[in-house]
Amino acid sequence: MNIVLFEPAEVGDDGGVTIGDSRAKHLLNVLKVSLGHQVRVGIIDGPMGVGTVATADAGVVTLDCAFESMIAEPPRVDVLLAVPRPKVLRRLWAQLAALGVGQVILTNAEKVERDYFDSHVMHEAGYRPLLIEGLQQARDTRVPMVSIHKQFRVLVEDELDHLFPAGSRLVAHPGGHRSFQAALEPADGQRVLVAIGPEGGWNEFELGLLERHGFAQAGLGARTLATTTACIAVLSVVHAVLDNH
Amino acid sequence: MNIVLFEPAEVGDDGGVTIGDSRAKHLLNVLKVSLGHQVRVGIIDGPMGVGTVATADAGVVTLDCAFESMIAEPPRVDVLLAVPRPKVLRRLWAQLAALGVGQVILTNAEKVERDYFDSHVMHEAGYRPLLIEGLQQARDTRVPMVSIHKQFRVLVEDELDHLFPAGSRLVAHPGGHRSFQAALEPADGQRVLVAIGPEGGWNEFELGLLERHGFAQAGLGARTLATTTACIAVLSVVHAVLDNH
Repeated sequence: MNIVLFEPAEVGDDGGVTIGDSRAKHLLNVLKVSLGHQVRVGIIDGPMGVGTVATADAGVVTLDCAFESMIAEPPRVDVLLAVPRPKVLRRLWAQLAALGVGQVILTNAEKVERDYFDSHVMHEAGYRPLLIEGLQQARDTRVPMVSIHKQFRVLVEDELDHLFPAGSRLVAHPGGHRSFQAALEPADGQRVLVAIGPEGGWNEFELGLLERHGFAQAGLGARTLATTTACIAVLSVVHAVLDNH
Repeated sequence: MNIVLFEPAEVGDDGGVTIGDSRAKHLLNVLKVSLGHQVRVGIIDGPMGVGTVATADAGVVTLDCAFESMIAEPPRVDVLLAVPRPKVLRRLWAQLAALGVGQVILTNAEKVERDYFDSHVMHEAGYRPLLIEGLQQARDTRVPMVSIHKQFRVLVEDELDHLFPAGSRLVAHPGGHRSFQAALEPADGQRVLVAIGPEGGWNEFELGLLERHGFAQAGLGARTLATTTACIAVLSVVHAVLDNH
């Protein structure tokens, strides 16, 4: 945990916060804080700051926090992801938040099993703690926006222009002939949306629909990667390309 | 599974192979092969080829295989990794092999717990099946070489020049000021070795020793990533930079 995050309602008007849960345990047992220690803190979807330990006793920690006046911009990369197996998705949430995405657009596809949509990690109560875990790892406060779409065609044809009104659209494709570096022509501050298919790939209809709606194919080379690895790899490379411009 | 791999001893002189384990189960139940079907096959550390299903019955599959005459070059990237927690390492093996590494050099560091070295996944019988799983995902036959070093200083001072005689050496460092694109000056066919520290980072002595032995710092930006995510992110970006030159 590289930053301790609080819900807005946890923070008093004077910047005082009292915690007694796993965050307090981490401060006491891993970081071994004591009175006067300073730790990095942040308000979810709000500013970061510094918290000074005011009391630390019996598993409860009180922090006096001073927050910055500015909130960081959300990451410039969004992801459109065919819903993976629940076991895979459960691990992926924190990694997506840690790598930095502005929004996660989850979609159905031919090779997505229907019952994936019923999984606990498809509900906010299931995924939000995992997203926050990833933010606490990566030192960010901005929770990615999440939307879930059971009809791929409706998503791409009718909803996507509202969700992602402007920027580059790419679809990751194993063996895609163009690299992400070549496919991205980043303008200042422009956003990028990357579509990542299900295990086994998009079918031809899906790929065609994406291409007709502005998604350019890009690949990481000849190797076929599993969903988790592919997501991390693609997001890392896109971030690296954007950071380098 | 995007290629079915065999140990050399499994393949007859005529290219015939009989399997009855999880690979056969995958062919029968997932790929639903029948007589005459062709599947991609390969010999571990040998060539790839095409296998034609000759018999498929009661969980046993016989394939007639024709192999290419050339063996692919091993990936140009090596990794020097502070031993992660066994639970993390168990998941990482297949991902390292899938992303493509020539060798994995595992090392001790101050923030590595001693008992990590005793884990089952630190022994060849534990990690080799996981490496092969990653190769079967990514469609490669070359098993990364693995070496394990309990003394970081001896490794860096005395052993590393034999393990990695020529090429670029980089150490991944959160918040490193130079990007991997800027830090890499790839020459044709040159190899790259990337060092990735333990959860919590290298200590100052370790970082200094690496730098004195030619490791240039490079970073992925301000975000601090957990070991698994960092490994995948760094290897993906280094591969993307090399592929683009």
